[in-house]
Amino acid sequence: MTVKQLSLPELIAACNELAIAQVGLWREPVQEYGLQAAAKLVRDAGLTVTTLCRGGFLTAIDPEKRAKALDDNFRAVDEAAALGTDTLVLVSGGLPAGSRDLHAARERIADALAELAPYAEDQGVRLAIEPLHPMYAADRCVVSTLAQALDLAERFPAHQVGVAVDTYHIWWDDQAPAQIIRAGTSGRIHTFQVADWTTPLPRGVLTGRGQIGDGAINMHEWLGYVERAGYTGSIEVELFNEGLWAQDGREVLAETVERFVTHVTG
Amino acid sequence: MTVKQLSLPELIAACNELAIAQVGLWREPVQEYGLQAAAKLVRDAGLTVTTLCRGGFLTAIDPEKRAKALDDNFRAVDEAAALGTDTLVLVSGGLPAGSRDLHAARERIADALAELAPYAEDQGVRLAIEPLHPMYAADRCVVSTLAQALDLAERFPAHQVGVAVDTYHIWWDDQAPAQIIRAGTSGRIHTFQVADWTTPLPRGVLTGRGQIGDGAINMHEWLGYVERAGYTGSIEVELFNEGLWAQDGREVLAETVERFVTHVTG
Repeated sequence: MTVKQLSLPELIAACNELAIAQVGLWREPVQEYGLQAAAKLVRDAGLTVTTLCRGGFLTAIDPEKRAKALDDNFRAVDEAAALGTDTLVLVSGGLPAGSRDLHAARERIADALAELAPYAEDQGVRLAIEPLHPMYAADRCVVSTLAQALDLAERFPAHQVGVAVDTYHIWWDDQAPAQIIRAGTSGRIHTFQVADWTTPLPRGVLTGRGQIGDGAINMHEWLGYVERAGYTGSIEVELFNEGLWAQDGREVLAETVERFVTHVTG
Repeated sequence: MTVKQLSLPELIAACNELAIAQVGLWREPVQEYGLQAAAKLVRDAGLTVTTLCRGGFLTAIDPEKRAKALDDNFRAVDEAAALGTDTLVLVSGGLPAGSRDLHAARERIADALAELAPYAEDQGVRLAIEPLHPMYAADRCVVSTLAQALDLAERFPAHQVGVAVDTYHIWWDDQAPAQIIRAGTSGRIHTFQVADWTTPLPRGVLTGRGQIGDGAINMHEWLGYVERAGYTGSIEVELFNEGLWAQDGREVLAETVERFVTHVTG
């Protein structure tokens, strides 16, 4: 998604040129290209798919909408399995129209996970609940903190349901470091994602995720938290940024690699 | 601030017409009108000033900037006392340019409060730390939760430092109800403010606070929390909303009274 201006073949080629061995994919471009074709493309290029983004949106009250959302999530699990990734990231969904009950919405997510998680396990796919920044609580994700995500995840075995730790969503939270330990000790950090916090936020607050190093987040610090919690998995850079999307995708990818080495792992 | 299109005399007249007996004021219009003149205006109209907004912005590292901010806060205390309110609301301030250390910024707030709170007590003014929504953590307020605000406030006596409970900033937080109890039992709820959460958020996310009843927040529920925590003080409606500011201020005030009765106290 960081370089969504690149087609899937362009992305794969750019990854090869830059010696990027792992890539996180989103469902829409994969579906557009064709699931089996996309799977062959990454396989033939020797790339590993870290995670598939995203399932979720499991908060509907209306039975028909709920069934439709669950169906879509079963398909997302199948897609993840076909791509050879073991992790499907879930953005849980916001409040249904007219509802003001965050707690009930979170409970409906748990109900949906109870149907989804065993199916995912059968396909070799783990679910990663991603807490989104509290500014998305109403319209996108009622799970706003790592603690809430873990409260949900811990109702299931760790190999079925864990969490996605994304700096952009949790950097403000002084409870997050302890929750990362909680997640790590039970083997529930299913992915670690980085994006920086820059201001002013754009209208709708969806497409303002900053390039690493441009914002307020100390990336070394957060990498330290997940490492000390035992995390040895992939690190994904996930930037939604109109400015970056308007640039040459290969240049953005090259810059991102530089920033990653300087600000995250360096 | 809800009807900042009204001049201070227009606001006072509109309050009288609508039988509003209490009003929260902001420093800028008071300074513009003249502090003593503003104090006389509200006094002669028989109005009580609930709080003065706002002091704060106490996170500077640079000694000169820090001293200037403290001076401004001493003045804010004087202004609150002159207006006859016992509460000055503090918006703590964001990260200084180039800093990525939220914890250190919060500690500098505590240092500043240690100078400010005794002075405020001498003037009969309590300080109310207002946690702002986490989306303001970088550029406006490093205090993002009621728990953080109370961690700071509890270093001081309750009659010196408490918190401002504002639905807009904390509605997403499942820990907030317990923190309201924590604040109430130590007598630290120094004001209760309401605004609704509506989406999409505008660019900069400052001026999108929804009219009561238009958004995702169950106001009855939050009034219940503060009441069960023993709060019997004023309830302030604080909306920052370009749409409302563009309308006739007296009509907005009348609508706000209706919404208040329906959605908060009704």
